[in-house]
Amino acid sequence: MHEIKSLNEECGVFGIWNHPESAQLTYMGLHSLQHRGQEGAGIVSSNGLELKGERGLGLLTDAISDVQLETFKGNQHAIGHVRYATSGNKGIENIQPFLYHFYDMSVGVCHNGNLVNAQSLRIELEKEGAIFHSSSDTEVIMHLIRRSKAPTFEEALKESLNIIKGGFTFALLTKDALYGAVDPNAIRPLAVGRMKTGAYIIASETCAIDVLGAEFIRDIHAGEFIVINDDGIRVESYTKDTTTAISAMEYIYFARPDSTIAGKNVHAVRKESGKKLAQESPVVNADMVIGVPNSSLSAASGFAEESHLPYEMGLVKNQYVARTFIQPTQELREQGVRVKLSAVKDIVHGKNIVLVDDSIVRGTTSKRIVKMLKDAGANEIHVRIASPEFMFPSFYGIDVSTSSELISANKSPEEIRDYIGADSLSYLSVDGLIHSIGLDKDVPYHGLCVESFTGDYPAGLYDYEERYYENLSPRQKAYLENNKQYFDKEGNLNVESI
Amino acid sequence: MHEIKSLNEECGVFGIWNHPESAQLTYMGLHSLQHRGQEGAGIVSSNGLELKGERGLGLLTDAISDVQLETFKGNQHAIGHVRYATSGNKGIENIQPFLYHFYDMSVGVCHNGNLVNAQSLRIELEKEGAIFHSSSDTEVIMHLIRRSKAPTFEEALKESLNIIKGGFTFALLTKDALYGAVDPNAIRPLAVGRMKTGAYIIASETCAIDVLGAEFIRDIHAGEFIVINDDGIRVESYTKDTTTAISAMEYIYFARPDSTIAGKNVHAVRKESGKKLAQESPVVNADMVIGVPNSSLSAASGFAEESHLPYEMGLVKNQYVARTFIQPTQELREQGVRVKLSAVKDIVHGKNIVLVDDSIVRGTTSKRIVKMLKDAGANEIHVRIASPEFMFPSFYGIDVSTSSELISANKSPEEIRDYIGADSLSYLSVDGLIHSIGLDKDVPYHGLCVESFTGDYPAGLYDYEERYYENLSPRQKAYLENNKQYFDKEGNLNVESI
Amino acid sequence: MHEIKSLNEECGVFGIWNHPESAQLTYMGLHSLQHRGQEGAGIVSSNGLELKGERGLGLLTDAISDVQLETFKGNQHAIGHVRYATSGNKGIENIQPFLYHFYDMSVGVCHNGNLVNAQSLRIELEKEGAIFHSSSDTEVIMHLIRRSKAPTFEEALKESLNIIKGGFTFALLTKDALYGAVDPNAIRPLAVGRMKTGAYIIASETCAIDVLGAEFIRDIHAGEFIVINDDGIRVESYTKDTTTAISAMEYIYFARPDSTIAGKNVHAVRKESGKKLAQESPVVNADMVIGVPNSSLSAASGFAEESHLPYEMGLVKNQYVARTFIQPTQELREQGVRVKLSAVKDIVHGKNIVLVDDSIVRGTTSKRIVKMLKDAGANEIHVRIASPEFMFPSFYGIDVSTSSELISANKSPEEIRDYIGADSLSYLSVDGLIHSIGLDKDVPYHGLCVESFTGDYPAGLYDYEERYYENLSPRQKAYLENNKQYFDKEGNLNVESI
Amino acid sequence: MHEIKSLNEECGVFGIWNHPESAQLTYMGLHSLQHRGQEGAGIVSSNGLELKGERGLGLLTDAISDVQLETFKGNQHAIGHVRYATSGNKGIENIQPFLYHFYDMSVGVCHNGNLVNAQSLRIELEKEGAIFHSSSDTEVIMHLIRRSKAPTFEEALKESLNIIKGGFTFALLTKDALYGAVDPNAIRPLAVGRMKTGAYIIASETCAIDVLGAEFIRDIHAGEFIVINDDGIRVESYTKDTTTAISAMEYIYFARPDSTIAGKNVHAVRKESGKKLAQESPVVNADMVIGVPNSSLSAASGFAEESHLPYEMGLVKNQYVARTFIQPTQELREQGVRVKLSAVKDIVHGKNIVLVDDSIVRGTTSKRIVKMLKDAGANEIHVRIASPEFMFPSFYGIDVSTSSELISANKSPEEIRDYIGADSLSYLSVDGLIHSIGLDKDVPYHGLCVESFTGDYPAGLYDYEERYYENLSPRQKAYLENNKQYFDKEGNLNVESI
Repeated sequence: MHEIKSLNEECGVFGIWNHPESAQLTYMGLHSLQHRGQEGAGIVSSNGLELKGERGLGLLTDAISDVQLETFKGNQHAIGHVRYATSGNKGIENIQPFLYHFYDMSVGVCHNGNLVNAQSLRIELEKEGAIFHSSSDTEVIMHLIRRSKAPTFEEALKESLNIIKGGFTFALLTKDALYGAVDPNAIRPLAVGRMKTGAYIIASETCAIDVLGAEFIRDIHAGEFIVINDDGIRVESYTKDTTTAISAMEYIYFARPDSTIAGKNVHAVRKESGKKLAQESPVVNADMVIGVPNSSLSAASGFAEESHLPYEMGLVKNQYVARTFIQPTQELREQGVRVKLSAVKDIVHGKNIVLVDDSIVRGTTSKRIVKMLKDAGANEIHVRIASPEFMFPSFYGIDVSTSSELISANKSPEEIRDYIGADSLSYLSVDGLIHSIGLDKDVPYHGLCVESFTGDYPAGLYDYEERYYENLSPRQKAYLENNKQYFDKEGNLNVESI
Repeated sequence: MHEIKSLNEECGVFGIWNHPESAQLTYMGLHSLQHRGQEGAGIVSSNGLELKGERGLGLLTDAISDVQLETFKGNQHAIGHVRYATSGNKGIENIQPFLYHFYDMSVGVCHNGNLVNAQSLRIELEKEGAIFHSSSDTEVIMHLIRRSKAPTFEEALKESLNIIKGGFTFALLTKDALYGAVDPNAIRPLAVGRMKTGAYIIASETCAIDVLGAEFIRDIHAGEFIVINDDGIRVESYTKDTTTAISAMEYIYFARPDSTIAGKNVHAVRKESGKKLAQESPVVNADMVIGVPNSSLSAASGFAEESHLPYEMGLVKNQYVARTFIQPTQELREQGVRVKLSAVKDIVHGKNIVLVDDSIVRGTTSKRIVKMLKDAGANEIHVRIASPEFMFPSFYGIDVSTSSELISANKSPEEIRDYIGADSLSYLSVDGLIHSIGLDKDVPYHGLCVESFTGDYPAGLYDYEERYYENLSPRQKAYLENNKQYFDKEGNLNVESI
Repeated sequence: MHEIKSLNEECGVFGIWNHPESAQLTYMGLHSLQHRGQEGAGIVSSNGLELKGERGLGLLTDAISDVQLETFKGNQHAIGHVRYATSGNKGIENIQPFLYHFYDMSVGVCHNGNLVNAQSLRIELEKEGAIFHSSSDTEVIMHLIRRSKAPTFEEALKESLNIIKGGFTFALLTKDALYGAVDPNAIRPLAVGRMKTGAYIIASETCAIDVLGAEFIRDIHAGEFIVINDDGIRVESYTKDTTTAISAMEYIYFARPDSTIAGKNVHAVRKESGKKLAQESPVVNADMVIGVPNSSLSAASGFAEESHLPYEMGLVKNQYVARTFIQPTQELREQGVRVKLSAVKDIVHGKNIVLVDDSIVRGTTSKRIVKMLKDAGANEIHVRIASPEFMFPSFYGIDVSTSSELISANKSPEEIRDYIGADSLSYLSVDGLIHSIGLDKDVPYHGLCVESFTGDYPAGLYDYEERYYENLSPRQKAYLENNKQYFDKEGNLNVESI
Repeated sequence: MHEIKSLNEECGVFGIWNHPESAQLTYMGLHSLQHRGQEGAGIVSSNGLELKGERGLGLLTDAISDVQLETFKGNQHAIGHVRYATSGNKGIENIQPFLYHFYDMSVGVCHNGNLVNAQSLRIELEKEGAIFHSSSDTEVIMHLIRRSKAPTFEEALKESLNIIKGGFTFALLTKDALYGAVDPNAIRPLAVGRMKTGAYIIASETCAIDVLGAEFIRDIHAGEFIVINDDGIRVESYTKDTTTAISAMEYIYFARPDSTIAGKNVHAVRKESGKKLAQESPVVNADMVIGVPNSSLSAASGFAEESHLPYEMGLVKNQYVARTFIQPTQELREQGVRVKLSAVKDIVHGKNIVLVDDSIVRGTTSKRIVKMLKDAGANEIHVRIASPEFMFPSFYGIDVSTSSELISANKSPEEIRDYIGADSLSYLSVDGLIHSIGLDKDVPYHGLCVESFTGDYPAGLYDYEERYYENLSPRQKAYLENNKQYFDKEGNLNVESI
């Protein structure tokens, strides 16, 4: 459903050390991470002596040609990146990995997530004479590393990781080693795998490890970094100030159903959330359950199973991406969503339907889908959302950073139900979500980052703080007043609050 | 699953008359027919005076740019085509619609299906001085029309339709009218729709009518052709020698689940076939049912529902198409299918699985999927195929025309089970298939073309006859000896056989 | 100067038989003929068994990539074509050579020139059921050949060459032979060469023979065709009804200065025409002679030498072709010609200048050049044109086919002098031109086709006749009344007129 | 002749302030400077508030599309660049102008020439934490400016210009002003012009001023910089330590014949050098003079005029650039030069020829041309070079920086004559060259930089010093011992030497 809704993950990273087909395998790994970013892709690869890179705009197959891939032949080490570009920054200069050639070394670097203090760091660095060549946060860490007085690259990296704030993972490649790093809350995921050949892999999701037939070893945890070189792998903590808070949106929406994060399979979590939702908000007299393809199909099948209702394919998604439709008339524009999604008349006609979706962001898509089903002859439509109300912006790598975009920041469920034209509307509770995922119970939100549902930001707000507080809606303010917060504005754990 | 298996439909056609956005709507219609052909696309459009065309290689969005689409602006009439190119004929000169400018008129023409007497007609025409510019069957009908002595274009078209043999639909556009035509067995489908604006549409599948918010009017039946012009629409028969035999493969594999053919919704048919399959070949002690995405998901959910087993997402398909993977090592090549499809370990590990697939053609894909599931830790795997054994080649527009490609032409189910490594293997019976679809009972095979399962060719063999009989395998011969045939080599109904 | 003036040759042809690098050599040959057509190029090549072709739009290097060229590797025989496309027919389907695959043979064909009876032949053929796929004249001959009842391809070709009228050369390739043919007046040139390896070449100009280090053998004369196969070469006449009338424009403007046509080197002819012009129309008190680059530099140096005046580079042509300049303001548009040509202030300032140009077609370019020189400070400008007044349209392969485009059709030299702002203006006389070239004295115009200066059409007018006579201007009519014509409307030699 | 010989200028710069079509005019200006660089081009333009840029690889028309150009519409200020890329650095990241966005301002910068201390400055800067994103010298100045403590951009620029060494011009654009700068020796040229509209222009050559119909105002002299803003123009010196030494190669080879540098028209200088050469080294018994097109035609016509010999077009250059010729056989490779240049047999056959060329770098091209003329039947060939022996490498922006490439570093004229197969060979003397150009007599070499002929480097050697002295050949050493040098290794004027 990535083409339908306006929720966008900012990137996937991949790295491999010591395989004679490293660039080819990186290409395959990136292909399995393509859902995390479709606007650009790149590979930086090394033969142990020199690094070279290729990158391009668009999907992986457009971004990197076979001829370009062939130029990496024989290189044993590589990192790669797929990118979702936020608007206005779509130039090739922002496509990662970035490759830097210095007089004393070369470094490739790529990044998933968002730094909340990048803007202030950047200004500070520029005042000291630094020159940036992209609008990407990723450059900040390189400047920090190069300006560090630490004696080794690794020390400089550790020092720099302690300066940046937010949700992030990094992959870096030098001729001597492959590095990975995860933010102090493990908001964004990074997993390690091993091939039978002895090659090591790091990747944003385990599906990129599976696709290569490799064995999953472990997740990189909050505040950890990994060094992979010819001596093997070594994982260390660069900070002790950590609180695990894995982005719940990875489970709900972003990750591929076959990926596993922190030991929990994404499809299984989604199916469980559907079951929990059916328990919390059952629908009487329904004839069938349908899910919005593709990300809500697991939750819908869970809902159906729990409700003993048939699970039907009442909506079909066109598996081919249509670029743009130029200058359509109003008549055509209103049909926009039909191009991507269609209702199956013969299935839904005259039926009472439970429509399961993973989330409501702006509400416009839900409104169109409900209308489409009603136009196709559906009788009642009961919308069930397999996550809580999306009430607060995210600053840790999801492309929703202003409250005004969020319908739940301003409207109650009943108002939204009315807006989208459904016969009923319910959301999964925060507790229901947390239990569906089922992580460790001893940390806030059982180890999840649920900032979009609670306004509680584990990595702090920093550069976004002022704008955030200025723009809070009455509904958001009311929520914050009535609900306990675990983290302060710098993301420090407010111990007494636990 | 079109990228996974080697079954390919040869094309989708679309036409629209009398809408100021005709080319734009054709583009949208073709987008919804993209699953029928991904190697080329084109549009011919008319402003009532002149015809112009654009076409290109690849997916629709690559084949026709926004700038090209814009050049049609204001034209009220259009036809369009998406094409699957058989190997060796991938040049731009074969991309349809073909557009012909004569001194007295211009004609656009496109075509779905395959003519079984094209080769002999072509040689005959060339001997009379005809010059062909493509290797496509489609040109044949244009030569027949232009050489006809009939007084009108329509008469010449009717005359020509009676000369060609096979499974086909045609869409033709002149400045005066839009024409559609269906073969005397209605092997390939063509539907008619109407927009609220009064515009008329013809399309290979109803999903292309639905996507435009138009109303379905009727199917074009066996041996009919339709004329749409400013006076409205008119459907006539060009031959009385018809026997309805709709390609069963449209229901089983090709058509989109939201399309309806001859009054039967494709998803519903597939779900029903899954239920029927569960009745014919139940699995005891299974833990779950999984389908091979995407075309087998409906049948799998039917099987699960009938068996009261959980329906799980044990296989995940990468929704992005990866072009080629250059020069992979043996190690990588064996992982080929993983790039498109992955098993979800956490779901399938230690489980007894019913794996539902729509068909087995060569067996190599099934073998890989079974291995992938076993590698992921699955215990028993019981393969259930929601169609009969694919034993005979097709000559009516499916890209399987030699017996040697078909594993069932040479191996028994038990041998195939052994080859693919499954714990059990069963197929839906021909009768089961026919009843799942549920068409009219008073014609052979209840109105279906099931040639691939029975070797009974309703439109005859013609140019393919000699090669067909020379290449029959012992298993095929045995089948033909033991089973009644309704049609002779010219496709004539063998009345006493009914 | 091809980019500056609107005189366009329609194409160059090339063929080679029996060289292991035939396509590569054809590419090099076409490169040396690039000045004859810049809007498309193609190659058809054969390995003795099969023919394959590649073609594309634009300059040779854009039209045919290295990868495409590589696909011909090892083929011993090839023909190639560079094309100037008349407006409205710029599609890839018109790029030659055309390649036809028939059940009994394959043929590649390409063509330089223009057929004056193509339109009527085409309608006649279409009435008999023929289907054309391009708007090019070249297809006509293929239809004639395929419909011929002659027993061999060669006989059919001969028969067809006798049906078409106009100025033309053809190159045809089958797996068995390479054919070349020249119109009955030899209006368009075709030369034969031989490489040291024994390979034979045919080409529109000798520069394509020289570039390959090959030896010139002979020109193909009026009404001849050549067959080159593994037995060697054979030249025959397909008609006895011939009168040599080589296009004077090849010498004046089209051909490369290093080419030789009918034994006369083009640079030498141009230099001689400059000398003759200086004798006929000397300029007193001039300080220097400058030529309009590039085609008039030879004539200018001849004028300078004869006049004992310095030959200076007062105009510089930008050697890089600028595509388009989008939406310029009026101010910019007026500077249009400057982009291609600039006056050298320091050279021309305060000087009396003889400006030699090869021809005046519309007068707009001359007007701009004179203004540019005056703006640069030139004192007097005396324009001398190294050819007669361009008074009549051409129908034999030059892109000037309507009188309204020709300033000399309507204005006297004095009126044109006034329009272009020159201080004096003179043209070379028809006799002066004929003597500068110096061909055989015993045929009309000494063996030249000077239709643009005399309105005397050696190959007749045919399909153009009616429009031609309807559009004659008073000045054209007056010329025709006062001057003897050698040829009638069918191009027959009016013997008593000689 | 830029495609024939391996002498390459490194770039042309252009800038314009205050014209509503600034980007369009920059495009036209760059088109007229295309001969200075064909491997990339770019434009940075401003609307007075923001700067935006477009750039691309290849010729201007490939590098910047009409659509890209259109995005600048309405911007009043712009700079542009055409680039010659030295091998290995052909990526898009090296294409200029570079555009930098800082928190406090944006800057566009581009550059012609070469800095001799760039490498040491770069390492120094990197040690302080600077990150470079290209391999271009141009980035150095931006880092110097941003690290300067000077209070204003202009002061920082002045400071930085005093740190860098070599031959260079810069154009910089901010929202407030357009800046130009010239090195302390004025090795590379920069001219200022004014349009009638009041817009100001800076450009590497005056031909870019002329093409826009603008008026030349003055050259920027050694050590000067210019500021153009809404208050008008202001020229200042950033250093007093200047000695004018304009690159003689601009006159001899690089600049367009219609350009004027330091008051001397390039064509006139070349013609004069031809005359001087005829006086210094006349040829007896010659039949004609021919020049190697295009850059030697002026000198050849001067030689002819002075010698009273006919000036003929004995060599023709193909005006179309052929990309590459893949995998040619030895036979084809030897014909390489013929593709670009051909001898006109009918002109040169049996003749004694004076062949005028502007320079001999490696000798391979001269050898081929002499052979080509002899193959075409020429009798004696007397080569006359309109510049002195090219004996020393250049480090100020010409792509000849190693002695081993230079035939004159190792061979005497007689040895070279023998190598190229000529009947005689003479060079213009250094004095002859200096007098042909005719600049101010009171500075070393009359104000020219003739380092390639004398080994006297007015801007010093710096980073190149060590390698230079290590690689001196015996012939170079002998020259240096026998001839007075004006400049020391830092480029300081050795006053007593004058």
